Amino acid sequence: MTSIAADPLASWNDGAAKREILAFLARVTREGSDDFVPEPERVAVFDNDGTLWPEHPVPFQAAFAFDALKGRIAAEPQLADDPMVQAALKGDLATLMAGDGHEGALRILALTHAGMTTEDFHAAVESWMEEARHPHFGRRYDALTYQPMQELLALLRETGFKSFIVSGGGADFMRVWVERVYGIPPERVVGSTARTVFAMEDGRPVLTKTLDTLFVNDAHGKPSGIHQFIGRRPILCCGNSDGDHAMLHYTTVGNRRPSLGVIVHHTDDAREYAYDAHSKSTGSLAAALKEAPQHGWQVVDMKRDWKRIFSDG
Amino acid sequence: MTSIAADPLASWNDGAAKREILAFLARVTREGSDDFVPEPERVAVFDNDGTLWPEHPVPFQAAFAFDALKGRIAAEPQLADDPMVQAALKGDLATLMAGDGHEGALRILALTHAGMTTEDFHAAVESWMEEARHPHFGRRYDALTYQPMQELLALLRETGFKSFIVSGGGADFMRVWVERVYGIPPERVVGSTARTVFAMEDGRPVLTKTLDTLFVNDAHGKPSGIHQFIGRRPILCCGNSDGDHAMLHYTTVGNRRPSLGVIVHHTDDAREYAYDAHSKSTGSLAAALKEAPQHGWQVVDMKRDWKRIFSDG
Repeated sequence: MTSIAADPLASWNDGAAKREILAFLARVTREGSDDFVPEPERVAVFDNDGTLWPEHPVPFQAAFAFDALKGRIAAEPQLADDPMVQAALKGDLATLMAGDGHEGALRILALTHAGMTTEDFHAAVESWMEEARHPHFGRRYDALTYQPMQELLALLRETGFKSFIVSGGGADFMRVWVERVYGIPPERVVGSTARTVFAMEDGRPVLTKTLDTLFVNDAHGKPSGIHQFIGRRPILCCGNSDGDHAMLHYTTVGNRRPSLGVIVHHTDDAREYAYDAHSKSTGSLAAALKEAPQHGWQVVDMKRDWKRIFSDG
Repeated sequence: MTSIAADPLASWNDGAAKREILAFLARVTREGSDDFVPEPERVAVFDNDGTLWPEHPVPFQAAFAFDALKGRIAAEPQLADDPMVQAALKGDLATLMAGDGHEGALRILALTHAGMTTEDFHAAVESWMEEARHPHFGRRYDALTYQPMQELLALLRETGFKSFIVSGGGADFMRVWVERVYGIPPERVVGSTARTVFAMEDGRPVLTKTLDTLFVNDAHGKPSGIHQFIGRRPILCCGNSDGDHAMLHYTTVGNRRPSLGVIVHHTDDAREYAYDAHSKSTGSLAAALKEAPQHGWQVVDMKRDWKRIFSDG
């Protein structure tokens, strides 16, 4: 273990969560001990929305999609007649997510995340991130990452871990900014993906986004996504909702290596939001929270365990 | 650039290919030069079959499948009545690959690459690699990697590159041995993949392999696979067949960074095999070879450019 700051988790209050995380990292990096894990196997996975930054009032990628939709409507006003477009413009996530097939959400995705080149999509996300402001906090969305989790990511880098984002969010959306914001390179993002189509156009290679074979990297999809993209079982998993329940299982149950699960519990309605089983946005947390004691998953109480919430301010 | 051996490509004869590869690496790693590429963007992609090891008389994964099939038939003798199973037992790749849908190949894949857990598949590949011997060279398959390419992989590691395998082979097949054989970790494998299904069985997490939403990472699929799994455009691409043509384009045409394409040309029927436009196995090379001069792709003549072929022997 390389030398690390006197208190690498300075924004964490002393308590069980901080203690257990530090004890776990000491255990798996201590050469010669039975619990030692060789560096290539030190794989950590992090959910993004609600784990590394907020997911209220809507997941940030939904805010991007709703804003992108306004641009589309300016060019094609008849789109505003579509009831799902109207729901999106109202930020009505419940209507968009209704039904097993989530037809509304797919309709909005088709209008905002397909039919353009990967380069044009990248540029659209980049400029939205520059211009958009969070409706409650009034700041850039990417200024709203959680400082305590940034400290954990930094500590994992120093202790020979590879950290991956494993999120229901779109890989193409996240890869635009993960390196700058989290120090995580694009190839360490496991997200929802769909097929792109390759062609040479006017002698130049072009990839066009589609929604074909959409893979939704959530819930039971997360262990599948981890296997498909990483191909190795993690030993540390941080999530905040029942969408992370399966990957908490996959990380910690029957793993031949020591492992740790961490659940970020949103308990701070003064500094951020308070919700678990009943969330007005995504991020409902019930089953995983109930099972936490049985598996030794550390529940981080944001109000009690974190001295500060956001990285910048 | 860290200090490297006096001749890091010792198994390469002096010639244009070696000279151009070394000149490219010097150019992109020289700080302060216009051609300097920051480390995170030093992404190299390598085809596997025919580029890092042979693909004759059949791709090694096909040999694995045919051997696995014999095991299945021992348990279920009626399988031997299937004409596609008979073709596989004869090593008749042409029959299996016939038709647009390659139904024969899919039938064999379904029998040998689906319906088991990822752990059981991993164990099957590992024990096959221990036991199987190449019919022509009489050695373990994983002892047949090309020494000159191993030297190139090592040199790229020393010069801050991240090397990825980008192969039509199955990711699950390759990830079993890539770290040991090439020093490339499993998450840097972009291969053909299909969905796995996650379930808790008897309280333990299990991923079961299927062929659902099979993604064949070949030809036009390779740039799509690179985008989906890496999310960043490579600056160095090594291939050997028209299946690599699209990723050679994607790497080198209109790239805002300096880039290099390399084609391994099988010209040595004494030490390995000689084929290009007409291959008895996979690996046909015609269009990409013809276009090489136009794009400055370096064609490696195995007979002329390589002092030795294999790593171990």
